[in-house]
Amino acid sequence: MSVQRLNLMGAVYAMACIVAGTAIAEERDKLLSEPGVYGNFSAFQIYHDWWNMDKAVRLAAISEAKAVFDKYRDKLAIDTFLLRGLSDHADVMVRVHARELGDIQSFLVDLLATGVGKHLNTTLVLNGMTKKANYVPAFPDALKNDLKAPSDPGPDTYAIVIPIRKDAEWWGLDQDKRTALMQEHTEAALPYLKTVKRKLYHSSGLDDVDFITYFETSRMDDFHQLIIALEKVKENKHNRRFGHPTLIGTVRSWDELFGTLGR
Amino acid sequence: MSVQRLNLMGAVYAMACIVAGTAIAEERDKLLSEPGVYGNFSAFQIYHDWWNMDKAVRLAAISEAKAVFDKYRDKLAIDTFLLRGLSDHADVMVRVHARELGDIQSFLVDLLATGVGKHLNTTLVLNGMTKKANYVPAFPDALKNDLKAPSDPGPDTYAIVIPIRKDAEWWGLDQDKRTALMQEHTEAALPYLKTVKRKLYHSSGLDDVDFITYFETSRMDDFHQLIIALEKVKENKHNRRFGHPTLIGTVRSWDELFGTLGR
Amino acid sequence: MSVQRLNLMGAVYAMACIVAGTAIAEERDKLLSEPGVYGNFSAFQIYHDWWNMDKAVRLAAISEAKAVFDKYRDKLAIDTFLLRGLSDHADVMVRVHARELGDIQSFLVDLLATGVGKHLNTTLVLNGMTKKANYVPAFPDALKNDLKAPSDPGPDTYAIVIPIRKDAEWWGLDQDKRTALMQEHTEAALPYLKTVKRKLYHSSGLDDVDFITYFETSRMDDFHQLIIALEKVKENKHNRRFGHPTLIGTVRSWDELFGTLGR
Amino acid sequence: MSVQRLNLMGAVYAMACIVAGTAIAEERDKLLSEPGVYGNFSAFQIYHDWWNMDKAVRLAAISEAKAVFDKYRDKLAIDTFLLRGLSDHADVMVRVHARELGDIQSFLVDLLATGVGKHLNTTLVLNGMTKKANYVPAFPDALKNDLKAPSDPGPDTYAIVIPIRKDAEWWGLDQDKRTALMQEHTEAALPYLKTVKRKLYHSSGLDDVDFITYFETSRMDDFHQLIIALEKVKENKHNRRFGHPTLIGTVRSWDELFGTLGR
Amino acid sequence: MSVQRLNLMGAVYAMACIVAGTAIAEERDKLLSEPGVYGNFSAFQIYHDWWNMDKAVRLAAISEAKAVFDKYRDKLAIDTFLLRGLSDHADVMVRVHARELGDIQSFLVDLLATGVGKHLNTTLVLNGMTKKANYVPAFPDALKNDLKAPSDPGPDTYAIVIPIRKDAEWWGLDQDKRTALMQEHTEAALPYLKTVKRKLYHSSGLDDVDFITYFETSRMDDFHQLIIALEKVKENKHNRRFGHPTLIGTVRSWDELFGTLGR
Repeated sequence: MSVQRLNLMGAVYAMACIVAGTAIAEERDKLLSEPGVYGNFSAFQIYHDWWNMDKAVRLAAISEAKAVFDKYRDKLAIDTFLLRGLSDHADVMVRVHARELGDIQSFLVDLLATGVGKHLNTTLVLNGMTKKANYVPAFPDALKNDLKAPSDPGPDTYAIVIPIRKDAEWWGLDQDKRTALMQEHTEAALPYLKTVKRKLYHSSGLDDVDFITYFETSRMDDFHQLIIALEKVKENKHNRRFGHPTLIGTVRSWDELFGTLGR
Repeated sequence: MSVQRLNLMGAVYAMACIVAGTAIAEERDKLLSEPGVYGNFSAFQIYHDWWNMDKAVRLAAISEAKAVFDKYRDKLAIDTFLLRGLSDHADVMVRVHARELGDIQSFLVDLLATGVGKHLNTTLVLNGMTKKANYVPAFPDALKNDLKAPSDPGPDTYAIVIPIRKDAEWWGLDQDKRTALMQEHTEAALPYLKTVKRKLYHSSGLDDVDFITYFETSRMDDFHQLIIALEKVKENKHNRRFGHPTLIGTVRSWDELFGTLGR
Repeated sequence: MSVQRLNLMGAVYAMACIVAGTAIAEERDKLLSEPGVYGNFSAFQIYHDWWNMDKAVRLAAISEAKAVFDKYRDKLAIDTFLLRGLSDHADVMVRVHARELGDIQSFLVDLLATGVGKHLNTTLVLNGMTKKANYVPAFPDALKNDLKAPSDPGPDTYAIVIPIRKDAEWWGLDQDKRTALMQEHTEAALPYLKTVKRKLYHSSGLDDVDFITYFETSRMDDFHQLIIALEKVKENKHNRRFGHPTLIGTVRSWDELFGTLGR
Repeated sequence: MSVQRLNLMGAVYAMACIVAGTAIAEERDKLLSEPGVYGNFSAFQIYHDWWNMDKAVRLAAISEAKAVFDKYRDKLAIDTFLLRGLSDHADVMVRVHARELGDIQSFLVDLLATGVGKHLNTTLVLNGMTKKANYVPAFPDALKNDLKAPSDPGPDTYAIVIPIRKDAEWWGLDQDKRTALMQEHTEAALPYLKTVKRKLYHSSGLDDVDFITYFETSRMDDFHQLIIALEKVKENKHNRRFGHPTLIGTVRSWDELFGTLGR
Repeated sequence: MSVQRLNLMGAVYAMACIVAGTAIAEERDKLLSEPGVYGNFSAFQIYHDWWNMDKAVRLAAISEAKAVFDKYRDKLAIDTFLLRGLSDHADVMVRVHARELGDIQSFLVDLLATGVGKHLNTTLVLNGMTKKANYVPAFPDALKNDLKAPSDPGPDTYAIVIPIRKDAEWWGLDQDKRTALMQEHTEAALPYLKTVKRKLYHSSGLDDVDFITYFETSRMDDFHQLIIALEKVKENKHNRRFGHPTLIGTVRSWDELFGTLGR
């Protein structure tokens, strides 16, 4: 094959990659912003014997796991986190978004079958789904407007996951009363809109909690103040379980995470 | 032996298999629909060392386990599920129906004695039995009629098990009050009759809960909405334990499941 | 030695065995029926590594354990159960009756020092003692009479152990109020007297519960109905802990149990 | 050296030992009776791999541990117990008294560094201190006098440890109300003064409970009746945690205990 | 290179070390006294297999860990504690202060990657931050003055960590009511100001508790009395979780701690 032709093919391939990459990025944006998407949070503890393996074996295992991540890139939005040092009973966490829970399972089953996965102990699994806002449509216009304020741009350092289970009384309240309580909750959270990003997953029946609340921030002091603000509103009395566990870690790319695992 | 005779024997054997298969299928249908049948849900976590065994050894172990499944096919109705990725502390689940709890135990003891079973850690056992409907006979005719609507045909993707324990107050209510509460519960569940199949097992004394509720669906969003609907009715206040754990997985044939275990 | 003499000695030895056997059987009957006897329920999980041992080693270990059972036969009443498949976190259970708790400990320490015992993880220990009936003397004569009805003869298949802890309010009630509540409890249980045998052990201070209730039956459906009947009486509101765990298994002789362990 | 001289030296050494022994015995008596002494209860489970070690290795390990016991004999009062068979999740227990908690830690750190200690899993640690009686000075003289009745002499067979945590309401009561409740408690316990010895440790802040109650008896039936008597008094309603775990075992000398561990 | 020059360089280097040491000490003082600093408490249990390793291997592992401590000395304030013997499920504890939680994670991830860290099981992680006093500004001047009394100088022997979670009602109280309750709390603690040092970390959202209370003392009896005093005030009724676990140990330098680990 001539060099020109090879070059041409390379260019076409590169363009295809860019196009594919764009499509992947677009689908990822949709998965992370649309309602009706499933989200899975899986926390793993690395088995003690991993660290006693040869470095070469570990590096091969990591490559195998990376290939699984790549295989599912166009269908799933996958994020990875380093929990070690900040959470107990968990070293790493994976967050997976997909349109079908079955696709999430396929990815995790494949991941756990790799040389890395065989050394991972799944210590927590939370499943949820995104939905249109329940209470916001009934909020006053001023509040609705405040909620549209953009959060600070740029990447965030920390991620926190707090599972929540409501008491039976909460679910027995009529929609108006719950809306009023959620309005107080939302107003208390307003001052932290800019520096703490939030994402809500509905969980009833999909695991043992009702909600998974996910936070991203570079300002842990602001996040702490936000949680105190939310503890002070009346709706907090209906939280039968709040955290327990609270998962806290740092946002890491796959490569950073695997770098930590491989050394 | 002549070829004709061999062929004839093969045909007879095939017919016997079909007849036997029909009998097995009929008995399975009865076990899955009649009252007075025992149901056992056993969740297993695969010991870490399984994955380090030679593939040939694992395949031999899987064949041994399959033989146990076959041995009990005519007496028990056995279903298998993949929980890994969607539930924590459990990789696979077996659901067994039989007319005697002792037969279920024999099967499970045999299964755990195989090369596969020796690598299974039993993380949860739930025992229950099917009974005639407690409250439905006292429901209004219109509701009784609604309950007869057929559910969507075809295989379902997901299975969910939620164990439930009632509080002492619930059991102290008289039958009329419980019927009224269960009527509200049933009406709330009506919109999901078509897409979410339910099966109820009574458990008091057979394990630490009062009921095992089993769900099958291809629509996890509908299932999630059903659970929210059930959280909103007054009967929910008498649920001392709801889930904890909630087991969630996908319906898998033995071969699919073992395929996953063998790779 | 002459053949006649050997035969004579054999006959004498056989008679001595019968006499000894009778004495053992009589003492066993007393231990199982008299008040003032201690009962211990120990549930064990077999360590994973047991199954990887050579069959010959396992058989030798089982013989060693059998010898311990034999050594204590004249002093203790020992029963054995297979829990595997019907209970989680327990494979086998031993129930031991003795006039002194120290003798029970000696037996269990000896058993755990055998080749079998070294592979047993003790997952639950319950200690109790039998006492004269607390409330029956104050029951109406008709009820006292009903309680004398004999239960169905013959061996039972299933055994269930349910530990119970009462709340502080129960213990604060005066004897008359507790008698009235226990009369309602007893009347609710009457229909199941024939098919479900019960035995009560008092536990306060001897472990973390107040009572150990032990059941034997061949009719698990009747047992289930009995528990529902007991959940419906007012005394149930004073059960702070009921089960948790409920241990359920089948009654097995030592040989059957060891046969299962040896294969 | 002449034989006489050797004999003389031997006699002097023996006398020194007796003197030292007497001093040790006197200090032990003080540690076990005076207020202001710290008490630590440590329960250990023997790791599964201990039993697979060579007997010679185990005997050497036991000698090493004995030397640690000897090293601390003059400073600490150390008692040992066999829990195996009567308690779950614990095989042996050590009770240590000292004037400083740091000395108790030094002993336990040394013990756990021996060949035995490396195979011990610490399943429970309770720390407390002895104090002068809180409520007795305000009791009526007759009751004070009753409390002086000597308990039965001679060694006791059984030891039981029950940790207790009071509720917030208890601590909020004024001293008079608590004294009245403790008087009822004490009167209920009087009939068991002779056969059940009690020792109280105050724990608030030193671990997760408020009190450690330690009992010694040869009459487990009397002990059981004592606990029922204490469950019936009003003060029992303020026990947020009672036991959980209850540790029960037999009093054993070091040599007996190590004999059991070595076989 | 001439000897004089080498000497000069040595002197400069020594001076640089002193200067650096001073800077490190100054930064450490700030980290331990300023508001807005993050504190992490990590408790570790040493895996059983550590003790079976060659002493030389363990010493090399300890050197590796020491190097990690040194690497972070200028950025973090790190303190180490020996919990073994006084706490269950934890042998050692590390307390780390930093201006960013991410720096704490980096240190712990590096530590856990060493030859020592590979044998540490993280049994508890608590994260908190220091803040300006919430309620003191509203206290009466006399009380504010009392709070300024210096504590006893000199090193303390014992350290205790008690995590606290408040109930929803506490957070629902207005600031005045909480101030009044905290004033009663503070007055109760006054008598122990001299002998028991306290440090408060705010935790809401950073783990599963609201506060981490850290104590240092040489007088465990005073500390015990302080906790009883705090149990008696009304604010105690709002403590939904107090301890559970309570971590108790002795303050040890790195070298002492590693000396214990290496023997």
